[in-house]
Amino acid sequence: MSRVKVAVAGATGAVGREMLKVLEQRDFPAEVVPFASARSAGSAVPFKGAELTVRELKEDSFKGFDIALFSAGGSTSEKFAPLAAKSGCVVVDNSSAWRMDPACPLVVPEVNAHDLDWHKGIIANPNCSTIQMVVALKPLHDAARIKRVIVSTYQAVSGTGQKAIVELENQVRRLMSGQEAVPEVYPHQIAFNCLPQIDVFLDNDYTKEEMKMVNETKKIMGDDSIRLTATTVRVPVFYGHSESVNVEFEKPLSAKQARAILAQAPGVRVLDNPRERIYPMPIDAAGQDETFVGRIRQDETVENGLNMWIVADNIRKGAALNAVQIAEALIERDLVRVP
Amino acid sequence: MSRVKVAVAGATGAVGREMLKVLEQRDFPAEVVPFASARSAGSAVPFKGAELTVRELKEDSFKGFDIALFSAGGSTSEKFAPLAAKSGCVVVDNSSAWRMDPACPLVVPEVNAHDLDWHKGIIANPNCSTIQMVVALKPLHDAARIKRVIVSTYQAVSGTGQKAIVELENQVRRLMSGQEAVPEVYPHQIAFNCLPQIDVFLDNDYTKEEMKMVNETKKIMGDDSIRLTATTVRVPVFYGHSESVNVEFEKPLSAKQARAILAQAPGVRVLDNPRERIYPMPIDAAGQDETFVGRIRQDETVENGLNMWIVADNIRKGAALNAVQIAEALIERDLVRVP
Repeated sequence: MSRVKVAVAGATGAVGREMLKVLEQRDFPAEVVPFASARSAGSAVPFKGAELTVRELKEDSFKGFDIALFSAGGSTSEKFAPLAAKSGCVVVDNSSAWRMDPACPLVVPEVNAHDLDWHKGIIANPNCSTIQMVVALKPLHDAARIKRVIVSTYQAVSGTGQKAIVELENQVRRLMSGQEAVPEVYPHQIAFNCLPQIDVFLDNDYTKEEMKMVNETKKIMGDDSIRLTATTVRVPVFYGHSESVNVEFEKPLSAKQARAILAQAPGVRVLDNPRERIYPMPIDAAGQDETFVGRIRQDETVENGLNMWIVADNIRKGAALNAVQIAEALIERDLVRVP
Repeated sequence: MSRVKVAVAGATGAVGREMLKVLEQRDFPAEVVPFASARSAGSAVPFKGAELTVRELKEDSFKGFDIALFSAGGSTSEKFAPLAAKSGCVVVDNSSAWRMDPACPLVVPEVNAHDLDWHKGIIANPNCSTIQMVVALKPLHDAARIKRVIVSTYQAVSGTGQKAIVELENQVRRLMSGQEAVPEVYPHQIAFNCLPQIDVFLDNDYTKEEMKMVNETKKIMGDDSIRLTATTVRVPVFYGHSESVNVEFEKPLSAKQARAILAQAPGVRVLDNPRERIYPMPIDAAGQDETFVGRIRQDETVENGLNMWIVADNIRKGAALNAVQIAEALIERDLVRVP
């Protein structure tokens, strides 16, 4: 069987490494070539039992490639994604650089794979906290139409990258041995603390992360009428974002009906048996592909209200897996041809 | 100067020890005697540079005492609080045993000290997550009348007691040295995890903690019309509960107005300068008396909506300090006479 050629740009980062792992695990029919900045070029990354040598990302790197999975930060994407697209390669970009660009589809395959059809070379992978939320909300929106969402997040440090994982580890070790914790990656200590700040603050006093959830949700769901407000918080967890989500629907939807709909929904797994103390938790979601939903219950303070608790692995479904699923959907929809 | 006689029942627990500390720090005009179960009787607790010997809690322990601060668990309170009240002692009870009893005031002094006037011997200290929320919400309710509150909590392990603090420490140590974490106090691992369960589940699939927030808020605020829904979550933090709170008001209230009102409110400290990365955090609230409020911003998804982030030391304002403040208010209001 012949294969497509896939470039992974930013292959040495936390998400890039996970992309390689996901491509391997899903037996993606591709010849895979890892790229990174000059600093990391020449190093090796594991793939299918062997090691691949990382090449330096250059302007002409993408010649002959069918798909490029980018996870190399906003400025790298801004520079290299258009070059890759120009050379005939379809870019799936994990940065926020192209997400709100009207020329770029913003895609979660379970929700809006159809938006891939109008791509012009660059497809944006949404923000991690948005992806898991829309996977769970879309089937409920289809059933009862969402009017308003109030979400509070509990986000893992891996969302910031490898250096934040190391920072949490180091701070915990220092504090447990009676030393002070020194914040470098985050503005304040993250160990045994909660930081109500993710990304920078904007003029309206919301963080960029909070406004990403607002704006990306509307674009992915294809519905500007959904009202959403978010409070995003970093917690001392390594992998797995959790979200406390309150939803007001236009039509009646019982907790039982929501559970039944979500049990059939693609990419969702319902974990909701409070009596047996079964509910989603980040330590269980880590390494898993599904978006886990539990604590589904009626909110009696509003007509047609539900509360729920949504957890997913932010590096997998929140980033690497979703990008690879977009690549798979491109092939399925014949937007990239397996030669 | 003569002094009132104060019994501290449950003096060896996390909250009991903090009660002694708060009585000492505030120079409460009392002769203090610590009590505990037979198991802990005879041990010593520090107080004003000396050590007090813990006496065994018995049916006739309260003779001659003016005030009893109880922090000894629900069943102990159910048995001993009425006995203490019968012997002429005013009980301030930190358990949930009497909170919703119509004969017992449920008091946060900044909010409803006036309810002390109708006490019949037992006064209930509210749940920790409720106390800090109502301290911040009451002045806003007075200004613009609250219609609906959606709260998601980030609660510290110290709320469960000393054994949970040890469990988080032990689990972190084990995981950092490559061993497995063994849950004993909590149903699941708490280290590097989020547990969307605090206390037991009720028939409506809410936890007891969540319904405490709903019911206690109405009783303390003296307003049954306030609609409130809660999702309560345990996070790997030692001290300090955080709350993401969305409020819908009847009348317009800008973020700026809310900040100005809260800056004047008793027991509140506004920490809200996002550009300087100043906002409340549990590591800063630990050991402090105030309830800290920040991230105050307009919620544009509803008429007259605000989001905010409320943090306080759950052992101090959430338990020990509030109980001692009730005792102080009893004296101020001449409900207990300094002899």
